[in-house]
Amino acid sequence: MTCDFFKLATKGAQALQPYQPGKPIEELEREYGIKNAIKLASNENPTGISPLVVTAIQAHLQELPRYPDGNGFRLKQALAAYHSRTINNVVLGNGSNDILDLVARAFVTAQDSVLFSAHAFAVYPIVTQAIGAKMIITPAKNWGHDLIAMRQAIEPNTKLIFIANPNNPTGTWVSKTELQAFLDSVPETIIIVLDEAYFDYMDAPDYPDSSLWLDRYPNLVVARTFSKAYGLAALRIGYALAHPDIINLLNRVRQPFNVNSLALIAAEVALQDRAYVMNAIALNKVGLAKLTQGFEKMGINYIPSRANFITFDLGKPALPVYEALLREGVIVRPIGSYGMPNHLRVTVGLPEENERFLQSLKKVLTKP
Amino acid sequence: MTCDFFKLATKGAQALQPYQPGKPIEELEREYGIKNAIKLASNENPTGISPLVVTAIQAHLQELPRYPDGNGFRLKQALAAYHSRTINNVVLGNGSNDILDLVARAFVTAQDSVLFSAHAFAVYPIVTQAIGAKMIITPAKNWGHDLIAMRQAIEPNTKLIFIANPNNPTGTWVSKTELQAFLDSVPETIIIVLDEAYFDYMDAPDYPDSSLWLDRYPNLVVARTFSKAYGLAALRIGYALAHPDIINLLNRVRQPFNVNSLALIAAEVALQDRAYVMNAIALNKVGLAKLTQGFEKMGINYIPSRANFITFDLGKPALPVYEALLREGVIVRPIGSYGMPNHLRVTVGLPEENERFLQSLKKVLTKP
Repeated sequence: MTCDFFKLATKGAQALQPYQPGKPIEELEREYGIKNAIKLASNENPTGISPLVVTAIQAHLQELPRYPDGNGFRLKQALAAYHSRTINNVVLGNGSNDILDLVARAFVTAQDSVLFSAHAFAVYPIVTQAIGAKMIITPAKNWGHDLIAMRQAIEPNTKLIFIANPNNPTGTWVSKTELQAFLDSVPETIIIVLDEAYFDYMDAPDYPDSSLWLDRYPNLVVARTFSKAYGLAALRIGYALAHPDIINLLNRVRQPFNVNSLALIAAEVALQDRAYVMNAIALNKVGLAKLTQGFEKMGINYIPSRANFITFDLGKPALPVYEALLREGVIVRPIGSYGMPNHLRVTVGLPEENERFLQSLKKVLTKP
Repeated sequence: MTCDFFKLATKGAQALQPYQPGKPIEELEREYGIKNAIKLASNENPTGISPLVVTAIQAHLQELPRYPDGNGFRLKQALAAYHSRTINNVVLGNGSNDILDLVARAFVTAQDSVLFSAHAFAVYPIVTQAIGAKMIITPAKNWGHDLIAMRQAIEPNTKLIFIANPNNPTGTWVSKTELQAFLDSVPETIIIVLDEAYFDYMDAPDYPDSSLWLDRYPNLVVARTFSKAYGLAALRIGYALAHPDIINLLNRVRQPFNVNSLALIAAEVALQDRAYVMNAIALNKVGLAKLTQGFEKMGINYIPSRANFITFDLGKPALPVYEALLREGVIVRPIGSYGMPNHLRVTVGLPEENERFLQSLKKVLTKP
């Protein structure tokens, strides 16, 4: 008889649930007997790929048998220049997910605790549980981070705080004033990750650019990604800005070749293609306005957002609506696993996709 | 004054050294004032990229803004078919490095120990130290794994054993008979990773295909990679075969999108392009023979290898020879960090590269 491998696993691994990925669009089309389904479920950039990125990748395909530059020198140099820092302030990740994981692994043991908000990004509990550390989860305020409650929830063994700004899946953000007051109040011996995956979309006047605060708050780790406004989710490339000593420690725990070569090349080029990013941002702004107007016309409550997604409240269990939308060929994201069973999250798509989503939502909500 | 972030880090992270990647070829050329340098330092496939892979990648470039299939369904299906197993026996990694990391994280805590051989692959101590677990390192026998010593070195808290077969950087391998005797003797409650990155090159008659042993030894994790014979090192894609319960646990600790989309596509196609792999293996066999003949002519001791690299003994500190080869435009790998300061490792290259390496070596060794 085979032994029980679950018992052999770490307590952290035992506590984790295997990730349930979304169904591929082809599978959904087969399963629901639909065609031309649209996916507004993963907060992806709908504007296609930068032609400059395509050219750069094609120019490097012959090098695929060679290992990546494990140091990511050229991309780090470009990012350092972009942020007016040095390359010692930059670490690269296999997506910003990797960054969140690296910080936890470098600083947190099973004897420590990690603090984050209810309804915050799902990767925070995952990286915490994988280590077997204690999770401290503060209740949300208007679906957003309650920084005052978070400050009060710090325990003596708290080593790490995750703040998603804006937060996924709620779209809520904390203001510059609130965030600075919080950072001023937290001891420097606690690492604070500001997860800013949706930074580029944020046009709210009170939304801060925390990358400018590295000198003031050396315990800050600012995580950014190329998966959203830069349109490179498939390639897995994110980065963090932080104090050189923190960067050094993250480099110790990271896998030597954590970022693939095409991601390094694509990100370097994408950083220069401002036209692509500005177009994505402009299109998103128009689409977001369209969606909020649509919700208002239908009398549907939504959580105000400036990111490339918006979360709305059906006032009743949302899964049947999610299923009905699937049958219309519109894939959105149910967020019951975030403690929000009455909400759905929809990504801002192309104009015709937003329109189709609103029409389909209207249809499924008015059905008898 | 900024606080001491090193003190805040986990003991594991503190103990690790930041990885020192090899210098990019362009940098070496600048630094040493040379041109047309050849890199025989990273055990990469010198035969270029499969045209089928190029075509497949080009066909998918428009999808880069979309997240990868986090489940890697199509590639896992192809690998399951290739190995006559089910997809529940397969987990994908961001290179096989990721696999080694996942196994350690799923099963090992700071209270456990991990067993491996002296001169074995550098990633084993890294993943062990990152967790803060104890390393048990057995002395080598003729530069290879001493499985009898390894069996005796198992301690009550040993959770994981790494065996590189063949081993990098020594090229040594353990025979089918030796390995089965070892596996028969180890309790099922200890996970054994057989790291077979160089599997495809191994034509020794006593070299086992451990992927056929999953049912007999359910505690076995067989790790393979697309970075060597399949020529996809840049893209980062490896996998493991194991018991479904072990695979389930590895999926719990892995990052949801650990493998990028182009790696998934490229590996699926590469698995079908037998002509590419067979050509790479044939060229390697000829090149390896050429190198060993060259060593013998020069009276240089080498460690017999069937992989795509060979390690030779200069009988004196090897770094000056490494430096002299660099000045000739030939990059090989010094392995002092593996406890082998008198050895150098050279990758089997294209015929003209092997020739140039041998000529350069002859030149630098006969210089006054």
